[in-house]
Amino acid sequence: MSSKGGRNGSFDLSCPIPLSDYPRVTLAHGGGGRLMHTLIEKMFMEALGNSLLEQKHDGALIEPTADLSRLAFTTDSYVVSPLFFPGGDIGSLAVFGTVNDLAMCGAKPLALSLGLILEEGLDMQVLWLVVRSVADACARAGTVIATGDTKVVERGKCDGLYINTAGVGAISADARELSPRAVREGDCIILSGDLGRHGIAVMARREGISFQTSIDSDLAPLIAPVSGLVDAGLDLHCLRDLTRGGLASALNEIAGVSGLGFRIEEVGVPVVEEVRGACEILGFDPLYVANEGRFVAFVSREDADECLEILRKHEVSSGACVIGEVLGNDSGPVVYIRSPIGSDRVLDMLSGEQLPRIC
Amino acid sequence: MSSKGGRNGSFDLSCPIPLSDYPRVTLAHGGGGRLMHTLIEKMFMEALGNSLLEQKHDGALIEPTADLSRLAFTTDSYVVSPLFFPGGDIGSLAVFGTVNDLAMCGAKPLALSLGLILEEGLDMQVLWLVVRSVADACARAGTVIATGDTKVVERGKCDGLYINTAGVGAISADARELSPRAVREGDCIILSGDLGRHGIAVMARREGISFQTSIDSDLAPLIAPVSGLVDAGLDLHCLRDLTRGGLASALNEIAGVSGLGFRIEEVGVPVVEEVRGACEILGFDPLYVANEGRFVAFVSREDADECLEILRKHEVSSGACVIGEVLGNDSGPVVYIRSPIGSDRVLDMLSGEQLPRIC
Repeated sequence: MSSKGGRNGSFDLSCPIPLSDYPRVTLAHGGGGRLMHTLIEKMFMEALGNSLLEQKHDGALIEPTADLSRLAFTTDSYVVSPLFFPGGDIGSLAVFGTVNDLAMCGAKPLALSLGLILEEGLDMQVLWLVVRSVADACARAGTVIATGDTKVVERGKCDGLYINTAGVGAISADARELSPRAVREGDCIILSGDLGRHGIAVMARREGISFQTSIDSDLAPLIAPVSGLVDAGLDLHCLRDLTRGGLASALNEIAGVSGLGFRIEEVGVPVVEEVRGACEILGFDPLYVANEGRFVAFVSREDADECLEILRKHEVSSGACVIGEVLGNDSGPVVYIRSPIGSDRVLDMLSGEQLPRIC
Repeated sequence: MSSKGGRNGSFDLSCPIPLSDYPRVTLAHGGGGRLMHTLIEKMFMEALGNSLLEQKHDGALIEPTADLSRLAFTTDSYVVSPLFFPGGDIGSLAVFGTVNDLAMCGAKPLALSLGLILEEGLDMQVLWLVVRSVADACARAGTVIATGDTKVVERGKCDGLYINTAGVGAISADARELSPRAVREGDCIILSGDLGRHGIAVMARREGISFQTSIDSDLAPLIAPVSGLVDAGLDLHCLRDLTRGGLASALNEIAGVSGLGFRIEEVGVPVVEEVRGACEILGFDPLYVANEGRFVAFVSREDADECLEILRKHEVSSGACVIGEVLGNDSGPVVYIRSPIGSDRVLDMLSGEQLPRIC
């Protein structure tokens, strides 16, 4: 292995599998034989190599940190179309998406797994760009790929490539439980930034030249601001990132589990003008559009100011603001949104599909 | 939730999603809105519900066992075609395959994740049968699904469904390291049973009526025999299950990492007559055909008899036998196979694809 791009960031742009030999992925690259091993050694170990992955066994052995009391465990499959979009690609999405799920549990990532399903005929250079992106994203999020798997399916049985990442994270012994069940009446609901960038960035690229914006996805790792909140020992109750289904679906899910209702102020929810305009053209409501670098925090009223102060120190959450509050027991698990003229309406869960294959 | 089939095995055969409403999976079932939540609540929680999954958060929180010193972490995606085959289906395969990877690390499973990629138009009843099979397999392997994710892609962008499972396992503090690096000169190589059943069972079903056998897949959880070996404190060095690429590829991988050569006896490798015949017709070598309930154990010569005795107590490894030995340093990392007439040839790694989508 000549270099470890995942660790020093100095990737060779050219694919380490000679494209003259294998310009495209073949079924044999997933067959368990010599070609699959070449792919693993030349490409995956080159980009992603680390002491866990180099154990080269059926699984990786991880030594937990000393103060580990609980593990967080999460998984997501990524089927975003197109594979590359403004502000990211399926590789960085697969890393940050799963790291962020760990962050929402108050956990710091110990390691990720990487499961690739490749379509026969996939351009080998595209695969290399995605693998490099996975490596870069791991370095940025302070984690590693500990174990992986590659399958190849016939042409027309996939769409280029799909990625599954699972993540294992450590929650320190003195951390409080973060979960929808811990939400309390009177909690402030804090949103970490403006909504809708990821969904609009992907849709703009998918629609091609017929629809253009300068919006990048908000895709980013959320470990740093969340660690700030957890380490400060705030009276924090729940965190949730706002992916598929957006803010509205996340709030409805948390309301359902906590049994409590919420009220948010429509004017308090930041949406930049270009996202708002794109949503109007496409017929979307930004409250339901997917984000990949935004979350809500439920925190006691007493600690809300300190929560905002900590979040605003980090670029990814510099636009943090209070958007609403948790209502009393008698409201039922309903999410209300107050319009600029002061009337309340129910903000329901999305009933169907708004943006397919957004993540 | 009216019953917990995953725990008491008394499943209702009929799909809990009314087929008259939704006979097939739609894109909206993966959209993050109401339909996805109905699928999760009515189907997944019904079959798979447990205290971890019921946390309903972005990830599951797991309390490790007291004597945990190391974690094992593994992942596999499953793209087997067809979805149902003699002796199993993609659901049981996804559970046992990942549980067995944990077993090969000497770990007992703490929990699995379940990532589903569904094709729009998938028969809802088929999905229910697979989810039930996942639940049954978890119960049989003594583990649970702790966290999950569902994506739906358009027709023609998948092949019914693909599953990723990742697994987290605990390795007790006093367990010795099991890895290819721990293999030593003079070790006995023990095979847990006869070869080729999984690959032939899947191929027979795929070929349909043009090719029939009575062979079932050997698919089975390997936790029990492996726990027997680990708990007995044997001088055990490496375990490896014989999936894609079969025995030949597994031995070559271990030889490559350990730097040592192996010699196995061709007559010592059990293959039942029907598998051998099917392999001849299909042009396969049983040494390269995938198994899903077979493994090799590298154990010191002194402990080989005890290893055999323990393995033979378990039905899944009742056919265990010594098939060869580890050679000295000067042989190089080469796998030799001795023919019945006593001549050695090199048993190479599979060079391409033998059986696509076998797992």
